[in-house]
Amino acid sequence: MENRPLDMLNAARDKRVVVELKNNKQFVGKLKAFDIHINVVLEEAEERVNGELTRKLGSVFIRGDTIIIISPE
Amino acid sequence: MENRPLDMLNAARDKRVVVELKNNKQFVGKLKAFDIHINVVLEEAEERVNGELTRKLGSVFIRGDTIIIISPE
Amino acid sequence: MENRPLDMLNAARDKRVVVELKNNKQFVGKLKAFDIHINVVLEEAEERVNGELTRKLGSVFIRGDTIIIISPE
Amino acid sequence: MENRPLDMLNAARDKRVVVELKNNKQFVGKLKAFDIHINVVLEEAEERVNGELTRKLGSVFIRGDTIIIISPE
Amino acid sequence: MENRPLDMLNAARDKRVVVELKNNKQFVGKLKAFDIHINVVLEEAEERVNGELTRKLGSVFIRGDTIIIISPE
Amino acid sequence: MENRPLDMLNAARDKRVVVELKNNKQFVGKLKAFDIHINVVLEEAEERVNGELTRKLGSVFIRGDTIIIISPE
Amino acid sequence: MENRPLDMLNAARDKRVVVELKNNKQFVGKLKAFDIHINVVLEEAEERVNGELTRKLGSVFIRGDTIIIISPE
Repeated sequence: MENRPLDMLNAARDKRVVVELKNNKQFVGKLKAFDIHINVVLEEAEERVNGELTRKLGSVFIRGDTIIIISPE
Repeated sequence: MENRPLDMLNAARDKRVVVELKNNKQFVGKLKAFDIHINVVLEEAEERVNGELTRKLGSVFIRGDTIIIISPE
Repeated sequence: MENRPLDMLNAARDKRVVVELKNNKQFVGKLKAFDIHINVVLEEAEERVNGELTRKLGSVFIRGDTIIIISPE
Repeated sequence: MENRPLDMLNAARDKRVVVELKNNKQFVGKLKAFDIHINVVLEEAEERVNGELTRKLGSVFIRGDTIIIISPE
Repeated sequence: MENRPLDMLNAARDKRVVVELKNNKQFVGKLKAFDIHINVVLEEAEERVNGELTRKLGSVFIRGDTIIIISPE
Repeated sequence: MENRPLDMLNAARDKRVVVELKNNKQFVGKLKAFDIHINVVLEEAEERVNGELTRKLGSVFIRGDTIIIISPE
Repeated sequence: MENRPLDMLNAARDKRVVVELKNNKQFVGKLKAFDIHINVVLEEAEERVNGELTRKLGSVFIRGDTIIIISPE
């Protein structure tokens, strides 16, 4: 199976993932792009705070240094 | 579609974007420039706090390490 | 025995580890991948807060700069 | 127009700019110098807190990692 | 005697050390490995909070950027 | 006049400067040395908190990442 | 006199210095080693909090990114 962490992100491309940030927000959307800084682009993204949908965004660029975890939904 | 996060920013060039910062402020404006540190320049920019317009700025340079997300408006 | 810290992570590959984060959360799961930034991928992962199971996640990518310790369970 | 964020700073050279810091202070002055870390030198600088003039400084070196935004006045 | 900080860590290899973290926790154990980022591996490790033993861990990887001091016990 | 921020520090060498830190302390002294990380050495240095002299130090090394501004007194 | 900040540390080698940390602790001891990250080793070290001796340590490795100032005692 995969041996490097980015391989897991690569396998999640075009699938829906949950991205959790240091400010306690979550963004859920289709993973379109990422880089070695873990900068991430989601499409059809939703923002959730404490599990509640707070906002719908088309596509969103998330700066890597604000991210705690990324997990397939 | 795009494969790297910066491609998404490139596609947003000259379009209006929302930039959210770690201090909870938002800047909304036309995306004129960005670099690999995610330093960003907006034109016809507005500052918003809790969704309220708080200030109009002509152009503004935003240092990348203060940014959480960038999303087309 | 091992001489470099990453050798210890290598020896823990495919074993269950506890990953503790700066935000006081723990993730427990099978260590599938890591890199020099200590970005980590766990499978069959559980989130625990104050020792209580709070969530089950399939696989999870954890950004290295949020990690305090990693220890075999 | 400009394509890189530093081009905007270059165009603001010798003009008055507002520099906002992470500690909520503002410095307003003539932009004399900057570098890729966004270290900045202002001349005829004033410090403002909550919009109030709090101090006059001749020239001031501002370390880049404390800066949030720079905007022509 | 030693001239570089890492020489002191090298001399402490296989000896018991106290590692103090930014979150006020201490880990005490046998120093098995370290690298230039001051990532550290301890064996027969104990966690202490305010001087009280709070947990026993077999071996533990500690990410360098969370460490304040390392001192032979 | 100068074009790079470090030129301003160079012009201040052997002159008295105020160095303000992220922890709200000020150090005032003669600027003897600096480097690209903005690590700084002052001589005949005084520590001030809220404008009050709190301590006299002969020479002091100040780590760059704790510095907000440097200004000739 | 010295021109680079590390020259000042070099001149303090084997002399007693005060090292102040971001967590408000001080370590006082004989400076045995330092590197470009300002990682430091002290010998015959004492920890002080608010000027009170709180602990005696033989030798101590202090990670550079936790240090604010270093000053000969």
